[in-house]
Amino acid sequence: MNSLREEALQLHSRYKGKLSVETKVQVENAKDLSLAYSPGVAEPCKKIFNDPEKVYEYTVKGNLVAVVTDGTAVLGLGNIGPEAAMPVMEGKAALFKSFAGIDAVPICLKTVDPVEIVETVKRLEPTFGAINLEDIAAPGCFYIEQKLKEELNIPVFHDDQHGTAIVTAAGLINAMKLVSKSFQEIRVVINGAGSAGIAITKLLLQLGVKDIILCDTKGAIYEGRANGMNPIKEEIAALTNKERIKGTLGEVICGSDVFIGVSVADALSKEMIQSMNIDPVIFAMANPDPEILPSKAKAAGARVIGTGRSDYPNQVNNVLAFPGIFRGALDVLASEINDEMKLAAVHAIADIIDSSELSEDYIIPQPFDKRVAPQVAQAVSEAAISSGVARKLSNRVKETV
Amino acid sequence: MNSLREEALQLHSRYKGKLSVETKVQVENAKDLSLAYSPGVAEPCKKIFNDPEKVYEYTVKGNLVAVVTDGTAVLGLGNIGPEAAMPVMEGKAALFKSFAGIDAVPICLKTVDPVEIVETVKRLEPTFGAINLEDIAAPGCFYIEQKLKEELNIPVFHDDQHGTAIVTAAGLINAMKLVSKSFQEIRVVINGAGSAGIAITKLLLQLGVKDIILCDTKGAIYEGRANGMNPIKEEIAALTNKERIKGTLGEVICGSDVFIGVSVADALSKEMIQSMNIDPVIFAMANPDPEILPSKAKAAGARVIGTGRSDYPNQVNNVLAFPGIFRGALDVLASEINDEMKLAAVHAIADIIDSSELSEDYIIPQPFDKRVAPQVAQAVSEAAISSGVARKLSNRVKETV
Repeated sequence: MNSLREEALQLHSRYKGKLSVETKVQVENAKDLSLAYSPGVAEPCKKIFNDPEKVYEYTVKGNLVAVVTDGTAVLGLGNIGPEAAMPVMEGKAALFKSFAGIDAVPICLKTVDPVEIVETVKRLEPTFGAINLEDIAAPGCFYIEQKLKEELNIPVFHDDQHGTAIVTAAGLINAMKLVSKSFQEIRVVINGAGSAGIAITKLLLQLGVKDIILCDTKGAIYEGRANGMNPIKEEIAALTNKERIKGTLGEVICGSDVFIGVSVADALSKEMIQSMNIDPVIFAMANPDPEILPSKAKAAGARVIGTGRSDYPNQVNNVLAFPGIFRGALDVLASEINDEMKLAAVHAIADIIDSSELSEDYIIPQPFDKRVAPQVAQAVSEAAISSGVARKLSNRVKETV
Repeated sequence: MNSLREEALQLHSRYKGKLSVETKVQVENAKDLSLAYSPGVAEPCKKIFNDPEKVYEYTVKGNLVAVVTDGTAVLGLGNIGPEAAMPVMEGKAALFKSFAGIDAVPICLKTVDPVEIVETVKRLEPTFGAINLEDIAAPGCFYIEQKLKEELNIPVFHDDQHGTAIVTAAGLINAMKLVSKSFQEIRVVINGAGSAGIAITKLLLQLGVKDIILCDTKGAIYEGRANGMNPIKEEIAALTNKERIKGTLGEVICGSDVFIGVSVADALSKEMIQSMNIDPVIFAMANPDPEILPSKAKAAGARVIGTGRSDYPNQVNNVLAFPGIFRGALDVLASEINDEMKLAAVHAIADIIDSSELSEDYIIPQPFDKRVAPQVAQAVSEAAISSGVARKLSNRVKETV
């Protein structure tokens, strides 16, 4: 066992997990008890009973996020179940705190039925200010997010879809500046039609990309394809690949400008890159082993390369997106995280890198760049306000108005 | 508005609630991230996937308690709903942390259907080490606790029932020492057949009290009573009031040794106390206003008086029980909190007060007596082990073996 693995196990067993629940108020004597608990606690209860919105004033709800999973698509490990998913959900909660000061709690559910998951999260709504769906397999995740967005009055965000899509899109904006191509003119080939691939496709369409071909293990998806379709692929087929190009990834990638991989190791070959248009841009985000190693991609002529890994330049890391997005949504009590807010996050992340700093090895900010979360939060808060889903002005936004 | 109320509101709005979720590990650079999150986090996930019990080694589960309510019976406020219940559940979580180092999370549910509550808590099981049911109205609370105890592999404890019962029983043990009466010979009249009244009745029967009359608003409950019965009252009727004594509280209290009130203000009169046997013991626990004020009870001849209030001697405060009980159960990974563990808690609380210290004004330990939680925890751990529901030895118990 290598040392990182051993060290990770030690870290997790040292304190038995990574989270603790602490009190913000002292409870050390009878007076404390009478204020924080009975009888004083009855006062905020009565205020909230009379005006439900006051729950945001007197309780932690407005800063409390549930990190909800059913354990069906955990990291690259797959369907390992809710108990084994706990370390990841605790880790996610730790990132929420470290990057955005958000109180987050793992909620690992003992059901993989999308209807039951929706039902359960609905029942949890009074406690939480927002819901982060995590590591739930496709296609169930699409139904769950859609249904919860319709039925809840708090933001619901499936990070595996939108977090990845937002950071990828931000990176692509900056990559296109380097190669002087516009979103309107490029052809993008996306490999992998799971939750991330679908979300990237939809977001790039919103950002003005006209020509996208989405591939799954059966090759290019097109309207009318007979095999391996599902409702979400049908929906995407109607929006992409207008020429109904058929074939394997190796066939359809020829002449394209951008490859985005959210699939498996070694899915992309040197020859495929060599068949692409001038200045190929490659996002090879399979984890832990990318679709092609950056050195190999470079040798094949790739101009800009991003991966999901921290040991190469241009890491597509969700931590650039979700902390600021939730912070921005919670700051203004947004009732949802809508498309305007996601697009605002994309541009906020891309704009961190000034045109003078932009280079092949720096199209995406570093994960620990302290400017990112606050700037994303502010952009997201403003977009929530201007799109009419904010229920209050944030202090952050007020200062800048 | 008086100053306590005002101060309580300020305390709750100052930090927006009373809890925060903190990280026990640093996430400040790429190395931290690779250990606490991807890729290192995959290692504990795989360990747990291969051996589910390892969830207690690598995650917070073993120290994480869900404080679950539907908001139907909150403090003395009644059915105020899940949002308005949040301050109480946060307060309870704060007490878990302050008194026993337990990480607890409020779970306020948007359903009052007992079947749905059971279903929801079952789905939450993977995340939590134990379930504290709180402020759920009778008779639903009985079904919910019973069903969850049957179906979950983690402890489930409805504190409004058992916490109150355990502290009351501990006080009664010490009161009987003062008046030199035995549990076998006394008649106890309990007023109030809600969750606490039922639980007190059952616990006193287990402790050897032979003669109990439970009263509700219709007077004494007896086998065959026609009005105002429900399945739980039927069950109790078969176990108590063997002589089938009928009548109001004022009628049936005559000649009894102990009055225990979990009912409403002013339910007990001077005349009723005067009709009792020599050395009457009165637990008047209605909140915030007791069944009779201690000064009035004293004047009527009560020998020992307990209330639910901090401003009188002998406060029956659940905080003496639940922190140590959960601590003891979690320390040995108990699969449940069984009768043996509850009885162990009763005696541990009673035994805090040495016979040389015992007096009319000191039959119950002070809420902030720092000996209580550890001694209760140790007794509960030992009872879990000896009754066969512990899955490991606790360090605490090992030290003393």
